[in-house]
Amino acid sequence: MDIEDWRKKIDELDTQLVKLINDRAICAVEIGKLKQNSAMPVYEPDRERIIFDNIARLNHGPLSQIQLRQVYERLIDVMRQVQSVDTESDRNSS
Amino acid sequence: MDIEDWRKKIDELDTQLVKLINDRAICAVEIGKLKQNSAMPVYEPDRERIIFDNIARLNHGPLSQIQLRQVYERLIDVMRQVQSVDTESDRNSS
Repeated sequence: MDIEDWRKKIDELDTQLVKLINDRAICAVEIGKLKQNSAMPVYEPDRERIIFDNIARLNHGPLSQIQLRQVYERLIDVMRQVQSVDTESDRNSS
Repeated sequence: MDIEDWRKKIDELDTQLVKLINDRAICAVEIGKLKQNSAMPVYEPDRERIIFDNIARLNHGPLSQIQLRQVYERLIDVMRQVQSVDTESDRNSS
C-alpha cells in the first residue's frame, strides 16, 4: 500500500470516528439533562476514573496508554462542555 | 433510559472508539515508514487541512465544528507523535 492508500483508509476511519464521537456526545447531552433533573454535578471524577480504566483495558496499541489517555482527556473535556452548555441553555429557556 | 443505560451505551461506543483510534494509529505508523523511505516530513500542513475539512463536512452534531476540531487537534497531535517515535526507533535500530 502506498501513502495515498493509507490516507484513504484514514478518511474512512474518520467517517466512522466523527459519527461515533457525535453518538457519544448525544449520550453526554442526555445524561446532562438527567443530571439536571436530579441536581447532580456535571463533573464526576469517579465516573471519569471508570472510563479511563475501561479504555486502558481495551487498548491493545499501537497507541501507548499515555497517548490514548491524551486523546480521551480532550474528548471528555469536550463532552463536559456539551453537557454544561446544554444544561445552561435548558435553564435559560425555562 | 436512565443514566446507567446511557453510560452502558457510552462504554459500548468507547469499545469501538478505542479500536478505531488504534486502527488510525496503525495507518499513521505505516505512513511514517513510507515517509521515512522517501525523506518526507512528518508534519504536512496541507494534508492536515484536508483532514479538518473532511471532518467538518462529516459533522452533523451535536458537537459544534469547534468542539470536534478540538478533539481532532489532540488526535492528530498524538498521531504525529506515533509517527515520529516510530520513525526514530527505526533510525536507531538501523
